[in-house]
Amino acid sequence: MRPEEILDGMMRRVSIRAFTEKEPTLDAIEAVVRTGQRAPFAAQLGSVLLKRDRARNPFGAPLLFTICVDVHRMERVMQARGWRRTMCDLSTLLLGIQDAALMAQNMVQAAELIGLGSCFLGNAPYVAPRIVEEYCLPPRVFPLVQLAMGYPAEDPLPRPRYPLSFTLFEDRYPLLGEAEVGRAMAVMDEGYLEQDYYRTRGAVIPLAQGREETCTYADYSWSEHISRKLGQWWTDPRVLLQAFVACGFDVVDTSGADE
Amino acid sequence: MRPEEILDGMMRRVSIRAFTEKEPTLDAIEAVVRTGQRAPFAAQLGSVLLKRDRARNPFGAPLLFTICVDVHRMERVMQARGWRRTMCDLSTLLLGIQDAALMAQNMVQAAELIGLGSCFLGNAPYVAPRIVEEYCLPPRVFPLVQLAMGYPAEDPLPRPRYPLSFTLFEDRYPLLGEAEVGRAMAVMDEGYLEQDYYRTRGAVIPLAQGREETCTYADYSWSEHISRKLGQWWTDPRVLLQAFVACGFDVVDTSGADE
Repeated sequence: MRPEEILDGMMRRVSIRAFTEKEPTLDAIEAVVRTGQRAPFAAQLGSVLLKRDRARNPFGAPLLFTICVDVHRMERVMQARGWRRTMCDLSTLLLGIQDAALMAQNMVQAAELIGLGSCFLGNAPYVAPRIVEEYCLPPRVFPLVQLAMGYPAEDPLPRPRYPLSFTLFEDRYPLLGEAEVGRAMAVMDEGYLEQDYYRTRGAVIPLAQGREETCTYADYSWSEHISRKLGQWWTDPRVLLQAFVACGFDVVDTSGADE
Repeated sequence: MRPEEILDGMMRRVSIRAFTEKEPTLDAIEAVVRTGQRAPFAAQLGSVLLKRDRARNPFGAPLLFTICVDVHRMERVMQARGWRRTMCDLSTLLLGIQDAALMAQNMVQAAELIGLGSCFLGNAPYVAPRIVEEYCLPPRVFPLVQLAMGYPAEDPLPRPRYPLSFTLFEDRYPLLGEAEVGRAMAVMDEGYLEQDYYRTRGAVIPLAQGREETCTYADYSWSEHISRKLGQWWTDPRVLLQAFVACGFDVVDTSGADE
């Protein structure tokens, strides 16, 4: 493969939610995680939990990775050097979430190159106490995101993305007028409808509070789907604040501020 | 190149801080950002600012990308569908930071494939008001991280990483005993010392509050360097909380919680 072909491969990358019976070898698993580790970051605040349990993993995937923000391990290193962390939890998490996310995306790319497919699962922070218990996590390890992985048993089309002009802004953020917004929505919505994406997956998010359904599969598409998430889910920050606390982080604690 | 060679390439990837005079074409820039957009995410909450101004960009890089969490654009789409965002700012940011980071890492990988080198700059959140002004960002666009990019004028060795056994944990998070911590630190510290990394770059972080320097370039290495960051920088969460507020986000606001 030439680099251009690999770029094409990255452009065609799509989430996989159905997996064959083939088991990834330990070599393959290690290649994926080692490549994950190569993501650029100074602090190495990401660590990776693995569960090989098809019976319980989402989509029956042979591999379930949970990528964590691991401040515990960092503190062990600092301790060994006679240091104590005084960076506030909020700044530490902002750094660590990026470390962990960069690592996760490198794992996705490495997996693709050796024929493995994957799908992110974003719910981990909201079930953090369960994950803490399941993997016996020490304080200050925060489960950020999960990644189901295995050999693909489906071959879906790449999903649409916003036009580049709606994403890349040189020198100045533009006014996003109704026409531009409408064009970007059309690209997304028509793209998903062409693939019959939500019908095929039965993936309509219901309207809350007993509101009557306003869409059919003929017009329910990306912009409605994503609006129902951001217009209905996770209204209360205390849920996440408490998940952080359950993992040993207090993001609004200012007691160390004057040290 | 076979996939294994590309994997090798990912394993050798290293940050680049010196760039040749060659200007990346618009085609190259667009390939990088388009591949960034392919990162898996439902919400497309990442957008990308670009500055082509060698005189002002860090390291004289021809390209400076600022990857943002863009909730403004999402709200414009929701508005067009008759929705209002009720997801709290904290959950929205946690989602958006991941979207933006996954996108940034895909941009790094795409750049490598077409011969471009890059280096992340993590300071953007702490100078958010300056970036907001410079790019005329509307409320609810948060500058997460910057990426300097261009054709490499240096060829550094890959930097060390933790041993895999210090990063990948199957089924259960292990006790990280002194021996394990010591071995992982040795890999990191000896690796950086072999490359004479901190001396070459003059990159020692001074001890705060007039404390007398305890290290020389012969023993100042990664674990000391990173300890000085997490043991001295950003002690007060109010700095970041205010940066969020300056960008239109209140991560502890619970007023929408009962909707």
